[in-house]
Amino acid sequence: MVPLYLHEDRFFDPDPAIRSVARELYAATRALPLVAPHGHVAPELLAENAPFPDPATLFIKPDHYIFRMLYAQGVSMESLGVPSRDGTPVETDPRVIWRRFAAHYYLFAGTPTRAWLDYQLAKVFEVPVALDADSADLVYNHLAERLTEPAFRPRALYERFGLEVLTTTDAATDDLRYHRALRDEGWGGKVRPCFRPDALFRIAQPEWGQHLHALEARQEAQLGSYAAFREALWDRRQAFKALGAFATDHAVVDPYTHRLADADAEVLYQRALGGTATVADQAAFEAHLLMEMAAMSTEDGLVMQLHPGSYRDHNGPVAERFGPDMGADIPVATEYTRNLHALLNAYGNHPNLTLVLFTLDEAAYSRELAPLAGHYPALRLGPPWWFHDSIEGMLRFRQQTSETAGLYNTAGFNDDTRAFCSIPARHDLARRVDATFLARLVARHQLTEREAHRLARALAYDLVRQTYRLDQEE
Amino acid sequence: MVPLYLHEDRFFDPDPAIRSVARELYAATRALPLVAPHGHVAPELLAENAPFPDPATLFIKPDHYIFRMLYAQGVSMESLGVPSRDGTPVETDPRVIWRRFAAHYYLFAGTPTRAWLDYQLAKVFEVPVALDADSADLVYNHLAERLTEPAFRPRALYERFGLEVLTTTDAATDDLRYHRALRDEGWGGKVRPCFRPDALFRIAQPEWGQHLHALEARQEAQLGSYAAFREALWDRRQAFKALGAFATDHAVVDPYTHRLADADAEVLYQRALGGTATVADQAAFEAHLLMEMAAMSTEDGLVMQLHPGSYRDHNGPVAERFGPDMGADIPVATEYTRNLHALLNAYGNHPNLTLVLFTLDEAAYSRELAPLAGHYPALRLGPPWWFHDSIEGMLRFRQQTSETAGLYNTAGFNDDTRAFCSIPARHDLARRVDATFLARLVARHQLTEREAHRLARALAYDLVRQTYRLDQEE
Amino acid sequence: MVPLYLHEDRFFDPDPAIRSVARELYAATRALPLVAPHGHVAPELLAENAPFPDPATLFIKPDHYIFRMLYAQGVSMESLGVPSRDGTPVETDPRVIWRRFAAHYYLFAGTPTRAWLDYQLAKVFEVPVALDADSADLVYNHLAERLTEPAFRPRALYERFGLEVLTTTDAATDDLRYHRALRDEGWGGKVRPCFRPDALFRIAQPEWGQHLHALEARQEAQLGSYAAFREALWDRRQAFKALGAFATDHAVVDPYTHRLADADAEVLYQRALGGTATVADQAAFEAHLLMEMAAMSTEDGLVMQLHPGSYRDHNGPVAERFGPDMGADIPVATEYTRNLHALLNAYGNHPNLTLVLFTLDEAAYSRELAPLAGHYPALRLGPPWWFHDSIEGMLRFRQQTSETAGLYNTAGFNDDTRAFCSIPARHDLARRVDATFLARLVARHQLTEREAHRLARALAYDLVRQTYRLDQEE
Repeated sequence: MVPLYLHEDRFFDPDPAIRSVARELYAATRALPLVAPHGHVAPELLAENAPFPDPATLFIKPDHYIFRMLYAQGVSMESLGVPSRDGTPVETDPRVIWRRFAAHYYLFAGTPTRAWLDYQLAKVFEVPVALDADSADLVYNHLAERLTEPAFRPRALYERFGLEVLTTTDAATDDLRYHRALRDEGWGGKVRPCFRPDALFRIAQPEWGQHLHALEARQEAQLGSYAAFREALWDRRQAFKALGAFATDHAVVDPYTHRLADADAEVLYQRALGGTATVADQAAFEAHLLMEMAAMSTEDGLVMQLHPGSYRDHNGPVAERFGPDMGADIPVATEYTRNLHALLNAYGNHPNLTLVLFTLDEAAYSRELAPLAGHYPALRLGPPWWFHDSIEGMLRFRQQTSETAGLYNTAGFNDDTRAFCSIPARHDLARRVDATFLARLVARHQLTEREAHRLARALAYDLVRQTYRLDQEE
Repeated sequence: MVPLYLHEDRFFDPDPAIRSVARELYAATRALPLVAPHGHVAPELLAENAPFPDPATLFIKPDHYIFRMLYAQGVSMESLGVPSRDGTPVETDPRVIWRRFAAHYYLFAGTPTRAWLDYQLAKVFEVPVALDADSADLVYNHLAERLTEPAFRPRALYERFGLEVLTTTDAATDDLRYHRALRDEGWGGKVRPCFRPDALFRIAQPEWGQHLHALEARQEAQLGSYAAFREALWDRRQAFKALGAFATDHAVVDPYTHRLADADAEVLYQRALGGTATVADQAAFEAHLLMEMAAMSTEDGLVMQLHPGSYRDHNGPVAERFGPDMGADIPVATEYTRNLHALLNAYGNHPNLTLVLFTLDEAAYSRELAPLAGHYPALRLGPPWWFHDSIEGMLRFRQQTSETAGLYNTAGFNDDTRAFCSIPARHDLARRVDATFLARLVARHQLTEREAHRLARALAYDLVRQTYRLDQEE
Repeated sequence: MVPLYLHEDRFFDPDPAIRSVARELYAATRALPLVAPHGHVAPELLAENAPFPDPATLFIKPDHYIFRMLYAQGVSMESLGVPSRDGTPVETDPRVIWRRFAAHYYLFAGTPTRAWLDYQLAKVFEVPVALDADSADLVYNHLAERLTEPAFRPRALYERFGLEVLTTTDAATDDLRYHRALRDEGWGGKVRPCFRPDALFRIAQPEWGQHLHALEARQEAQLGSYAAFREALWDRRQAFKALGAFATDHAVVDPYTHRLADADAEVLYQRALGGTATVADQAAFEAHLLMEMAAMSTEDGLVMQLHPGSYRDHNGPVAERFGPDMGADIPVATEYTRNLHALLNAYGNHPNLTLVLFTLDEAAYSRELAPLAGHYPALRLGPPWWFHDSIEGMLRFRQQTSETAGLYNTAGFNDDTRAFCSIPARHDLARRVDATFLARLVARHQLTEREAHRLARALAYDLVRQTYRLDQEE
C-alpha cells in the first residue's frame, strides 16, 4: 500500500519564483474562516446532528461527481448502490460498494474530485494510505470507525472546518422547519436558507400544479391570479429572510429576461392553472419572473444568483430509473449580452441590487461576462461553477475575466456542494489556486506582493462577505 | 508613499529559460518606431498642438476604460466629471475627480489599464510615487506642472514616443480639415485619416438622414439614387486617400456579407430615403455595402478593416444621460465562416485586397479566424482587440491562432486608442508579450533564437507596415 | 547553411521540475508501437509498395497543410504543382516546386507542420541541414537519392516506424481491392479499411445518384426502397469488417441525430431517387442515418467515429479549379448536447457501442464534450483534430477536458493523415506533449510519478487499443 500524502505545495505552479510567493499568499489565507454562501447541504444534517452512516453512503451513493465517472466506464449505478426509483434492486452492502469504488479510484487521476477526496481522507479522516483496490478494506474500516466518534458528527465538523456561515438551497415552498429549529435552538453555527423558486416558474412542466398547490398550502390561500401568485412569492422571500436568508437562486436554461405587461402575465398564469401552458409560454413567464425577482431584490435586498445553461437529465433512461442529479446534466452554449439586456437596463444600475452571474459556458467569460461585470454596478461574477470548479477551470476563469472585469467585480468562492465533508477541501483548493494565480502576477511584475496579499484575502474572504452583504449583518 | 517602479522584466514569463530569451528579443524591438495604423486620437490634437489640460481631463473624463471600472463599483459617472448630455450637473473640479480616481486605483490590479497608466506616469511623466489615495495630490501636482511644459505638448510627445505614423478614424462625411491643415503646414509627423462610413450604412437608424445630408453637403450633390450614393462613397474614399489614408474601417454587429442585385439595393436605398427602412433592410444593406467596399478596395488599394461583434450602448439609462462610448459596449458571439463566405469567394483571392479581421469573440480565434487566415491570400488577422488587448489576451491570441494561421498572416499591433499618451505604453506591452511568447517557443525548441529575432521584428514592425502597405509608400 | 537539429527536450515545458519528469515519461513511451486507427493514407501505397516519387510529389503537391500556407501568402497553387481540374497548366518540375517551397519554409515557424517536416527530414531521411532557400537543392538531392533506396519504400518504412496497425478511410462503395490484395498476400503489416458512407447520406448533392449507382453496382442489386438501401449499408459494413475493419467514420456539418419513422425515411429516399431532395431533407436523412449507424454498431461492434463541424470547400473559385481538400475547409460552431440527445438516449448506455467524438470547435471541449464523455458509457473523446493537432492544441484539449471527462474517457491518439512519412512525427509530438502535460500534474503534486507512468502509457498506447477494440482482436 502507498502512503497518502498531501504535498504542502500542491496545486502551485512549480516555477520557484511563482511558488515562493504562492506559499506566502496561501499561508496568509489558509486559516481564514470558510464562508459558504451557496450550496446544497441538507439543513437536517446540522439540525439533527446525527452521525454519518457508512463510508459508501457518505461518499459514493449521493455524489454524482463520483458515480458518473464509474458509470462512464461501464460500472452500473445499481452496483454502486445509487437508489433506484422504479424498484430495480441495487447493491446494499456498503463494503462491496466501497471496494468497487476503490478499484476504480484511478479513473479520477487529474480531476478535482480526486483532490477533494484525498483531502477528506487525509485531513478530515486522517487515513494513512492512498485509496486503491488493495487498501479498500483498510480505508473502509478506518472511516467507519471515525464515523462513530462524536468529533465526526456534522456540528463538530462545522466547527473544525472553520465555517462562518453555511447556506442551503431550498424550494420556495419549503417549510424551512430545520432552519427554524436551528434558530430556535440557538446553536452557535450559522446555517441559512436560500430562496429557490424555479419549480414555480416552470409552468409547462407536468409537476407545476403540485408545486403551486404546495405554495397555496404554505400560504393558506388560493392563488387564482397572477397578482396573488406574485404576492405569494414576495411573502415567501420575506419568510426566508426572516430565517436569515440573504440570497435567492435561479436556474434557467437561457438567461432570457423580458418584462411582460401585467395582463400578459395574467394570461400565461391562467394557462398554467388550466394546464395548457406551452414551452414558449414558460420561457416568457420565466423571463418575466426574473425581472420580478430583480425588482423584489431592489426592495428586500436579497442577493440574486443566476445559474443558467444546464440541460438537465440529458440521459432519459437514467433519469427514468434513478431520477434527477445523476451526473447527466450537460451544459449548453449560453448567451448573456442580449438575454440580460432587459434586466440590466431596468435594474443593473440600482444600488440595492446585487446579481451574481454563473456560467457553464466558458466562452462567455471573456466575451460577455467580464465586460458586463466591468460596467454594471449591480453585477458580480460568481466563481467557476460545477465542472469548472477545478484547478485549470479556476485558472481559466481568472485569466479570462480579471483583465476586463477587474478582480474586485468577482464574488469570491462558492463551494456549491451537497458533500458536507468536502467543503474544506474545496475552499482549500480555491485558495491555493488563487494564490498561484496572484503569485504569477507578482512574478511577472504586474502586482507588488503587498497588493497580492490584499487581493488574496479579498478573494478568499472579503469579497464573498461583501457580495452577499454578510459584512452588513454584523 | 510607495515608489513607482516599472520592473525591467515586467510581463515576461518568470521561467529563467524563457525570460532570458524574452529579454534579448525585447531589447531588439523596444526602440523600433511605433506604427499606429488604427486608432481614435483626434487629429486636432496634433494639428493644434495645444497643451493638454489638467490631469483629470487628460486621463479620466474621456477614457471609458477607466471610469467604467469605478462605475462598476458604485462610483457615479457624474462624480468623475464625465460630461452629461442632459444637463445633469457633473463634478468640475479636476483635483476632486483625481482624488476620487486615486482612491479607487487599486481596482485596476491585474488589468492592462493599470499597466498602461503606470507606464504613462513613470515613463512619460516621470512620476516618482505609486498612485493611491495618499499620493493623489502629489501626483496631481507633478502632472499639472509637466503639462505646462513645451516638452509635453502633443507634437513633442509624438517625436519622443517614436511614432512613425498615427492614424485617426474619421466619418466618411468628415471635412478632414485638420488632416488638410497638417498636410499644408508640412509638419514632419505623419498623421493619416481612415475612412469609416458606418453611419451611412445604418439605414434603419433615425440619424441616417442627417448623415446622408452631411454626405450630400460634402459632395455638393443630391444623392437620390443608390448609384449616386455608391459613387459618393467612392469619391469620399478618394478624398481620404488624397490626404494619405491607407485604410477603411467597418463596424457591424454580424459580419454578414451578401451582394444584392443593383435593383434590390436601389429598393432599400429608396426606403431609407423615405424613412421606412427596417432593421432587416439595414442588415441586407450593410451586407451588400461590405461587398462594395471590398470591391472598391481591389481598385483603390485601401486596406479594409472589419470590427464586428460589439453590442453598442448596452446600458440604456447611461447612454441616454451620457451618450455613446461609456464603457457599456458588450461583445456578442460572432460567426465568420458563413458570414464572410460571399465576400471571400468574390474577393478573397484578389491580389489587391487586404482584409484585416478583428474579433471580440475569442472562441472564433482557433475555430474560424486562424483557418480562414491560413488559407485566403487577402486575409490578415488583426491583433487582439479592445478587451483582449492585454497580457493574457495577447497570449491567448498567439497561442490560439499561430499554429494554424502562421504568424505571418497576422497584422502586427494596433493600439486602437483615443488616449494619446498611452500609445507608447500599449506598444511596449505588446512587444514584451510577443517577446515572451516567442521566447517560450525557443525554450521549447520550436524555434531557433535567430528565427525568433526575425519574428520579433516582424510582429513589432515589419508586418504592420506590410499589411497596411506602408512599405509601398516609400 | 544551418545544421538541422532536433533537440531532445523539444516541446517539453522548460521548467526544470516539469521537464525532468516529462523526459522520464517520454522515455517510457517513445518506443511503444504506433497504433493508427484513423487516417487517410491510400491503401495502394502499402499494397503496391512502389518507391515514392520525387520530394515535391511526396511532400508538397498532395498536402493541403503545406500549400495552403504558401497560398495564403500569395503563392499560386499552380506554381506549387497542385493538379488542376480544369486543364489550367501547373508547374511540373519538382525541383522548381521544391525551391519555391524551401524559400517560404519560414512561414511555418511555430506550426505543427514545421515540427512534423523537420522530424521527417531529420529522423526519417537524415537530412543534415535546415531547409531554406540556400539549402533547397542540397536537401532535394539528398531526399531524391534516399527515395530510390529499398529502405525508403512504404513497407520498409512501415516496419521502421513501428506501426502496429494502419487504418485507411474508404468510401462505403469502395471495392477494397487493395485491402483484399494485402490480406491475400499475407504481408505481415496490418492495414485496415474504415467504413465511410457520407456520400451516400447526402441526398441533396448532385453527385448522390452516382454514389447510389456505385452502391447498386457493388451490391449487384437495385436499391429501390429505403429498406433495401439500409440493408445494403449493413452488407457493406460486414464486407469491411470481413477485411478487418474495426470502425466507421461519419462527417457531417451539424451532429444532429433524430430517428424518423420508417415511412418518413422512405419518403425522403424516394425524393432522393427522384432527384428532388432538399437541403432540409438531407439534414433529416443524415440525422436518421446516424441513428441507424449507431444501432448497427451495437450489433456488429464497429466503433463509430463522428467528425462534425467542417464547412467544406469554402473557397468556391479554388474548389472549381482544384477540387476538394485544398486547405479551404473552415470550421463552424458545433452543438453537441442537443444534437446528440436522440442518439445518446437510444444507444449511449449500450455496452456494445463505442462512439468517438471529434470537434473543430474548442469551445465545446469543456462545455459539452467533457461532461458528455464523463457520463455516457458509450462515449470517448477523440484526440484534438486537424487544426488542433498541435502543441498548444493538445495542451488545450487536455487542460479543458481532463478534469471533467477524466483521462480514461479519451481515445488516445489519431494521426489522421494522408502523409505517410509524417506518421511517426505526429505520434512523437503527441507523446511528448502528453508527457509534458502529465509532468505538469506531477510537478503540481496532483499525480504521483507512478500514476503518471501508467497514464503516459495509456495515452500513448493502451487507450487507443481499448477504444478501437484492438485488444479484443488478439
